[in-house]
Amino acid sequence: MGVIVATMDGNPLVAAGACDAALDRALHYGDGLFETIAVIKSVPLFWEAHLARLGRGAAILNIPAPPPEVWRKDLRTALDAIPAQPRLLLKLTLGRGPGPGYGSAGAGPPRRYLWLSQWPERNPHYWNPGISAATCEVALLTGAPYLGVKSLNRLNQVMARDALAPEYAEGVMLDQSGLLREGIMSNLFWVTAGVVHTPELENGGIAGVQRAAILAWLQAHGVPTRLGYWPLTMLQDADEIFFSNSLIGVWPVRYFMGRELPGHDGPITSVLLTWTREMGLGLQP
Amino acid sequence: MGVIVATMDGNPLVAAGACDAALDRALHYGDGLFETIAVIKSVPLFWEAHLARLGRGAAILNIPAPPPEVWRKDLRTALDAIPAQPRLLLKLTLGRGPGPGYGSAGAGPPRRYLWLSQWPERNPHYWNPGISAATCEVALLTGAPYLGVKSLNRLNQVMARDALAPEYAEGVMLDQSGLLREGIMSNLFWVTAGVVHTPELENGGIAGVQRAAILAWLQAHGVPTRLGYWPLTMLQDADEIFFSNSLIGVWPVRYFMGRELPGHDGPITSVLLTWTREMGLGLQP
Repeated sequence: MGVIVATMDGNPLVAAGACDAALDRALHYGDGLFETIAVIKSVPLFWEAHLARLGRGAAILNIPAPPPEVWRKDLRTALDAIPAQPRLLLKLTLGRGPGPGYGSAGAGPPRRYLWLSQWPERNPHYWNPGISAATCEVALLTGAPYLGVKSLNRLNQVMARDALAPEYAEGVMLDQSGLLREGIMSNLFWVTAGVVHTPELENGGIAGVQRAAILAWLQAHGVPTRLGYWPLTMLQDADEIFFSNSLIGVWPVRYFMGRELPGHDGPITSVLLTWTREMGLGLQP
Repeated sequence: MGVIVATMDGNPLVAAGACDAALDRALHYGDGLFETIAVIKSVPLFWEAHLARLGRGAAILNIPAPPPEVWRKDLRTALDAIPAQPRLLLKLTLGRGPGPGYGSAGAGPPRRYLWLSQWPERNPHYWNPGISAATCEVALLTGAPYLGVKSLNRLNQVMARDALAPEYAEGVMLDQSGLLREGIMSNLFWVTAGVVHTPELENGGIAGVQRAAILAWLQAHGVPTRLGYWPLTMLQDADEIFFSNSLIGVWPVRYFMGRELPGHDGPITSVLLTWTREMGLGLQP
């Protein structure tokens, strides 16, 4: 069995096999990867997409991934252990398992960790009218396929968030060449002349499941989208800016670099807010 | 108490509090740092230097570090738990502790992990006549102070080692600008015209305790040393090349990029081999 930790108020209710973590390369080297998933009325959102991305990431790191049904069974065990909730936060972590030295030859077997915990409540103003955002001083690391994996090497994000003033709910990360990439914990979008833009994330940055869902939804509704590499100046002329991830859904940007933006009133932002609210994310009645 | 794991043959003999690991940001984000130390006849080598480096790294990551005497007490507990050995491998790990989200505000308290385990035996040929080494395809991540910390974000090294053919005992890592930096698990030195060279490690690469000891020893013995940034071509003309870390001491390079080198017979390499052998590292009688 893998490791299952289900917590309420930070107290583990189920912690089967948690001691395995101490010998896992996940702890020693950050040698593993994870998914963060919203569970709405006991149903994990975009389950297949998350498991597919975990599988692609595991292939890049050359970690054998367990089949989705194994995770599904873990989830059922954890859901049974805690009181029913309208929303829960689910995190799936795959560690390479024990094994000395940097090389992974002979390491393993891989270990699963499933964390189920309280929904992280956020300031309602982050959805209405929107957040204040700024540019991060810490550059996003890019340049190799493994840097596009949602791996357990997240010090880049920890340092970026710690260097950003707390009044900013999210920060824009540029790569070391000064090109726009993503938010610290989210993907970045902006609207210019009716076209929705989001950065390419080749070899660095995490292509979110929510990002893919938003792009697919926009395309299905006839809204033009563009992916590419752009400098920060692109945001100065944007009509709308928003961030997305699997838990927040969409956060409109109300203030960016001293400029006021329409936030939740932006025409495209507002339809996306409605859509993500219907799937159970963001502000609920 | 922190977490203490003492193992022989991979089986934990002491695993007090190891379950704490499952909730530590060390596992979730690689948010922590470590030291690897040789314990020779129950005495940890360069203890003060290792603890000082851990403290400097913790300051960069803004993790409160426990005082050295706390680690010393942990070490005594672990040493008492396993049979006396001429050499043991000691690893000190400091995790930031529990805390959700990338930002570290409110996270903690930090957790100590002390691992004491069997000495990793290596092929004797690595010291005499020396190793085969090659250049890594994976570039070393550089560009920010936290990238010079011996942090738990070591996927860069895992990917570099996995991409290197197994016949090479160590690989030379270049940064994304193509400048020489270090070995995957060691520091890099070479000798040209009697001068010992080693790369600067500003904002990326780990400045080893053994590297500092070697530089100090050379300077004390009147051997000229030079630190700087150089391209790979510098190694093509080197008279001697060697790697160092706290466990191997010194590994002479016998073959590099199709070229044969003197290996352990190199005049400077051989005196360093003698010196590190006297401190209990490398081949023992």
